[in-house]
Amino acid sequence: MEFQYENSFDVKEKINQSKIAILPIGAVEAHGPHLPLGTDNLLAERLSEKLAERVNGFVLPTLPYGQVWSLRNFPGSINISNNALISFLVDIGESLYKQGFRVFAMVNGHLGNQTALKEAARVLYESCPEMRVFYFFYPGMNQAAAEVREKTSAHSTYFHACEIETSYMLYLAPEHVAMDRALTDIPDIPLHADSTPTPWEEFTKTAVLGDASLATEEKGKYIIDIALENMVKMIEE
Amino acid sequence: MEFQYENSFDVKEKINQSKIAILPIGAVEAHGPHLPLGTDNLLAERLSEKLAERVNGFVLPTLPYGQVWSLRNFPGSINISNNALISFLVDIGESLYKQGFRVFAMVNGHLGNQTALKEAARVLYESCPEMRVFYFFYPGMNQAAAEVREKTSAHSTYFHACEIETSYMLYLAPEHVAMDRALTDIPDIPLHADSTPTPWEEFTKTAVLGDASLATEEKGKYIIDIALENMVKMIEE
Amino acid sequence: MEFQYENSFDVKEKINQSKIAILPIGAVEAHGPHLPLGTDNLLAERLSEKLAERVNGFVLPTLPYGQVWSLRNFPGSINISNNALISFLVDIGESLYKQGFRVFAMVNGHLGNQTALKEAARVLYESCPEMRVFYFFYPGMNQAAAEVREKTSAHSTYFHACEIETSYMLYLAPEHVAMDRALTDIPDIPLHADSTPTPWEEFTKTAVLGDASLATEEKGKYIIDIALENMVKMIEE
Amino acid sequence: MEFQYENSFDVKEKINQSKIAILPIGAVEAHGPHLPLGTDNLLAERLSEKLAERVNGFVLPTLPYGQVWSLRNFPGSINISNNALISFLVDIGESLYKQGFRVFAMVNGHLGNQTALKEAARVLYESCPEMRVFYFFYPGMNQAAAEVREKTSAHSTYFHACEIETSYMLYLAPEHVAMDRALTDIPDIPLHADSTPTPWEEFTKTAVLGDASLATEEKGKYIIDIALENMVKMIEE
Amino acid sequence: MEFQYENSFDVKEKINQSKIAILPIGAVEAHGPHLPLGTDNLLAERLSEKLAERVNGFVLPTLPYGQVWSLRNFPGSINISNNALISFLVDIGESLYKQGFRVFAMVNGHLGNQTALKEAARVLYESCPEMRVFYFFYPGMNQAAAEVREKTSAHSTYFHACEIETSYMLYLAPEHVAMDRALTDIPDIPLHADSTPTPWEEFTKTAVLGDASLATEEKGKYIIDIALENMVKMIEE
Amino acid sequence: MEFQYENSFDVKEKINQSKIAILPIGAVEAHGPHLPLGTDNLLAERLSEKLAERVNGFVLPTLPYGQVWSLRNFPGSINISNNALISFLVDIGESLYKQGFRVFAMVNGHLGNQTALKEAARVLYESCPEMRVFYFFYPGMNQAAAEVREKTSAHSTYFHACEIETSYMLYLAPEHVAMDRALTDIPDIPLHADSTPTPWEEFTKTAVLGDASLATEEKGKYIIDIALENMVKMIEE
Repeated sequence: MEFQYENSFDVKEKINQSKIAILPIGAVEAHGPHLPLGTDNLLAERLSEKLAERVNGFVLPTLPYGQVWSLRNFPGSINISNNALISFLVDIGESLYKQGFRVFAMVNGHLGNQTALKEAARVLYESCPEMRVFYFFYPGMNQAAAEVREKTSAHSTYFHACEIETSYMLYLAPEHVAMDRALTDIPDIPLHADSTPTPWEEFTKTAVLGDASLATEEKGKYIIDIALENMVKMIEE
Repeated sequence: MEFQYENSFDVKEKINQSKIAILPIGAVEAHGPHLPLGTDNLLAERLSEKLAERVNGFVLPTLPYGQVWSLRNFPGSINISNNALISFLVDIGESLYKQGFRVFAMVNGHLGNQTALKEAARVLYESCPEMRVFYFFYPGMNQAAAEVREKTSAHSTYFHACEIETSYMLYLAPEHVAMDRALTDIPDIPLHADSTPTPWEEFTKTAVLGDASLATEEKGKYIIDIALENMVKMIEE
Repeated sequence: MEFQYENSFDVKEKINQSKIAILPIGAVEAHGPHLPLGTDNLLAERLSEKLAERVNGFVLPTLPYGQVWSLRNFPGSINISNNALISFLVDIGESLYKQGFRVFAMVNGHLGNQTALKEAARVLYESCPEMRVFYFFYPGMNQAAAEVREKTSAHSTYFHACEIETSYMLYLAPEHVAMDRALTDIPDIPLHADSTPTPWEEFTKTAVLGDASLATEEKGKYIIDIALENMVKMIEE
Repeated sequence: MEFQYENSFDVKEKINQSKIAILPIGAVEAHGPHLPLGTDNLLAERLSEKLAERVNGFVLPTLPYGQVWSLRNFPGSINISNNALISFLVDIGESLYKQGFRVFAMVNGHLGNQTALKEAARVLYESCPEMRVFYFFYPGMNQAAAEVREKTSAHSTYFHACEIETSYMLYLAPEHVAMDRALTDIPDIPLHADSTPTPWEEFTKTAVLGDASLATEEKGKYIIDIALENMVKMIEE
Repeated sequence: MEFQYENSFDVKEKINQSKIAILPIGAVEAHGPHLPLGTDNLLAERLSEKLAERVNGFVLPTLPYGQVWSLRNFPGSINISNNALISFLVDIGESLYKQGFRVFAMVNGHLGNQTALKEAARVLYESCPEMRVFYFFYPGMNQAAAEVREKTSAHSTYFHACEIETSYMLYLAPEHVAMDRALTDIPDIPLHADSTPTPWEEFTKTAVLGDASLATEEKGKYIIDIALENMVKMIEE
Repeated sequence: MEFQYENSFDVKEKINQSKIAILPIGAVEAHGPHLPLGTDNLLAERLSEKLAERVNGFVLPTLPYGQVWSLRNFPGSINISNNALISFLVDIGESLYKQGFRVFAMVNGHLGNQTALKEAARVLYESCPEMRVFYFFYPGMNQAAAEVREKTSAHSTYFHACEIETSYMLYLAPEHVAMDRALTDIPDIPLHADSTPTPWEEFTKTAVLGDASLATEEKGKYIIDIALENMVKMIEE
């Protein structure tokens, strides 16, 4: 169910029956030559649709801007500050609560948003005591990705426009992938990147962190399906 | 050109050639039984596409949430505070400026957003001195609507889910209009509505302010085309 | 009753009997050569006195500074940001509520303040549920002005130091009008003035928007009396 | 020179010749049965006029609301938070600086405002480097008051509606003093009043801190004249 | 009892028995050649320990940074803004309240912090209605210092690295005093220092306001003991 | 060099020679029966001292309060909000920059602080362009801990009062460890703990996440030494 295509006369009863709202949230951010700037939006949106089907929830319109501090100097990136993002999400959450929702699941396609999403969820934890708020970022993906990847990751938590993320796209939005332009660019991420502000132009010119040419739809499906199962399980708890 | 489908390798040169970014902004809000909650998003988006073609600009991903204080208690409405909206828009604008844009045109489909858009534009007027920032809300529509409407308006500035807005939808997004459910509901808007906070449930149960059944694609096209011309003229000044 | 000339021993009983507080709010802003910088303060104050007599309310001390972004670069203008104004007004309103008032009527003499006043009123709508908050800006004046004006307006909502506002002053504060210096300056307000930040120095050197020499006390009285009746009606509802 | 009675055509040249702006700031606050709620406004305003004459400065319109936390529960008090007050004053100061002023003298009639005034002055110290900002509260009054008072003070820094402040009023605004209602109420201010939040209702029912019946115009004139000389000296430095 | 050396299994019962939390707060600030930058921290900490013994309270870890605007340009000073300090202290206070404390005594070693401490206490006064919040700055010291000092003070409220403060150190933290480097530097503090922002470099090069060589442990003990008695009395009220 | 024991006459030259400031930051938080509430403060402080020796830097006074949302309901925890922490740290950083420091290394003993530290570092990255800001949390510990631990971790990123942290304490602050009270409490952390706000009382009564009885000084030394080398390397880069 796409929330924004519902009408106000019929939606109340439907909310009462579902009580689950799913917000795709992504970013506009450099993803190399083979993936579009809106990659994280596309992923969040398509994954949200799958989740909505499974749990009988509503998909809200995608919030298509996020915190992209690390890549903000790359062509095409649009950066939202944590504070602006938090306030916006809290407002959405509080409206949903008043509308009768009891689950607010943010399906996030961009790692850089997690700080804001977690903080927003904590604010809502106080102001909307009977609503469960999730900030999902492919739950379970670390282990699943380790199982399928052919090259080791460039970094313990970052992954970007690489074998993994490109696989997600091949599974969820293949029409937006230009595999013929898929790069291999294995950066040497400095040790200090986890301990001091480090814009990514310090260590990559492409914004691709790995070997995108290894991406396959199957790898994407494998990880995404696990993430999806995990999300379903948590919502239905 | 849809900005989020561009990639970071090619987009820089394209920005340099266009320098015009267009942001559709709408709302999720009750619009009666015949129009969807996302009416203002659909209108802003489709109108932005027309504008982009005319001025060779980029359409950014739609910001699909807005300030809907007046209808916030109606089923399906999601309300963003002015402050959250302002911060979010200022962040977008400042990123666009750094990316090389020199026109930032917000194409707004929801009257309630104008306060925040105007304030954001004033902030950007100081911080981005060489970028022109527009907050368009169907410029010229008041006169044009007066020319085509068959019933007088319920209010001097409000119009909502009525003969006029439904006409816009019939022209720009007809697949989302259920004309068979189009209502006539001419409210008696109290004098104090312009002078004290007045949630619309005080004077309407439907959120339709007028006679939606009079809507036609032609009326919509007439007004929208005038608004479009006005926007083109201002951007090309 | 001027609130600040009351004393704390007697005022409690009087508040209980009236429950109506009226706040004049204006601005310090350029108004051409024939009107003083404090024109909006004088108008707000004198009109508040008339209103107080009619509804048996208290006139609070005038808040004599407002948001004058558009004319802030003209000699003599003092500009308060929306946020500072909102916070200040919310504090006043919450104190009035604790003091026992049940009507807080802001009588505004300066259009630029309306955004802040409306926002403050919405904040107070939540925090002071049993107090009615008004943000009056000459209610009904648009139609009344149309009836008496001899020259058409330069703009659909702006009016400033012109035939109309000078008429208000001739009725309410004639001792501060220098009619021998009343200008005629009919500006060509660009279309974009409603869609992008447009300081008024772009289209006027005088800050007079029209033909001030046509002002008369009678025109002023006609419009002001209508506005006054409308305010009385809304307060007594 | 009253600033708000100037007009925008002539004021620029006058500012250039004076460069001194004087802002009276007071409060609306309980002052016992013999003094009005607006006592601090009246004092600030009248003293500002005297100062303006001496230094050839402009008197700005009075800011008639202040921080009255301690007496906020007394009938008639209106309390502004420090933050709202600071923002408002910073906005005024920054406008004055852009208008060409080089001295911004806040003449304060209410002790509770000093925290906000000092903080605002520090903000302006950074943003307006060539403008001197003063927050005057009867400079030199402690010693002068000690010389004339007949009864010792109830507290080392508080004085309120007492022998001293009533004397100020008898000198500066005698038409607003009802000496026949002047009380003697010498409170026993607890030691903790300087170390923990202590609303004044804890130790006084009248809001009079001392023996108002001892007030005389002469005492008022003696202290006020000293304060005035001190202000003149500091401005002319 | 040092709070941070307690463990979470035993502390609950102890809180229930004491209910008193004492927070030393100081600053890092220039104190001349004979006293360390952390003088105010050392004094606050040692005095807090004495107070804790007397009232059976917990000493919290010292908050070792404060608002040092006046001396911020001196070598070694670290300045915290009032707003940051207030927020931090309010958070501490609200946690203490939830943990069951009913007295929160801030023992302040630095005059510049008093504004923030007082404001934080007022916020907590509303949010923690059953907890008493103190902002102690050597209560009673003015009179006590007057009794023992050999040279008159340079200023009515300032005292710094002088006969008095050095005496405190000789009593409470003698191992950090280099009396052989104790200076005499009696500044001529300008009249305007109380009425306009005045960084101390305007009138002192040493940051010593007086004759530190006159300091003795006895003077320190005399004043500190009085302050201690006053604090005990207020807490036990 | 302990910064707060320096004096303002000598410190300037020393800053010029070192330019490195090290801030220990921890928390007051439940750590089971065998570790004190101030565990994270002790660790941060002792580790900072080692680091200072290695790089010839100053150790600033410990900031002993942090964000402990997850354990805030456990006895003894004191919770600071992210925003208050960020503001406080930014103020410290900006003062250090003005004092001439060019490295500001935050040595963090509490995982919950990392969000605020990272955000503060990003703010300082803009405002202090020539100062390197680090937010160290035992860099390299994940791998090192994996090498020495005898029991697998309860969670991929959390570790608390367990085999590992207790080992740190045995190495850095053994006098504060009560090994005879060391618990084994291996919690079943729910999957949702990474995706929805999850106070730790949901899955542990002790706040010990693992088997503290396995802690040894050697394990602590092994990991800490690696972290120390990593920090030295990054600062000296």
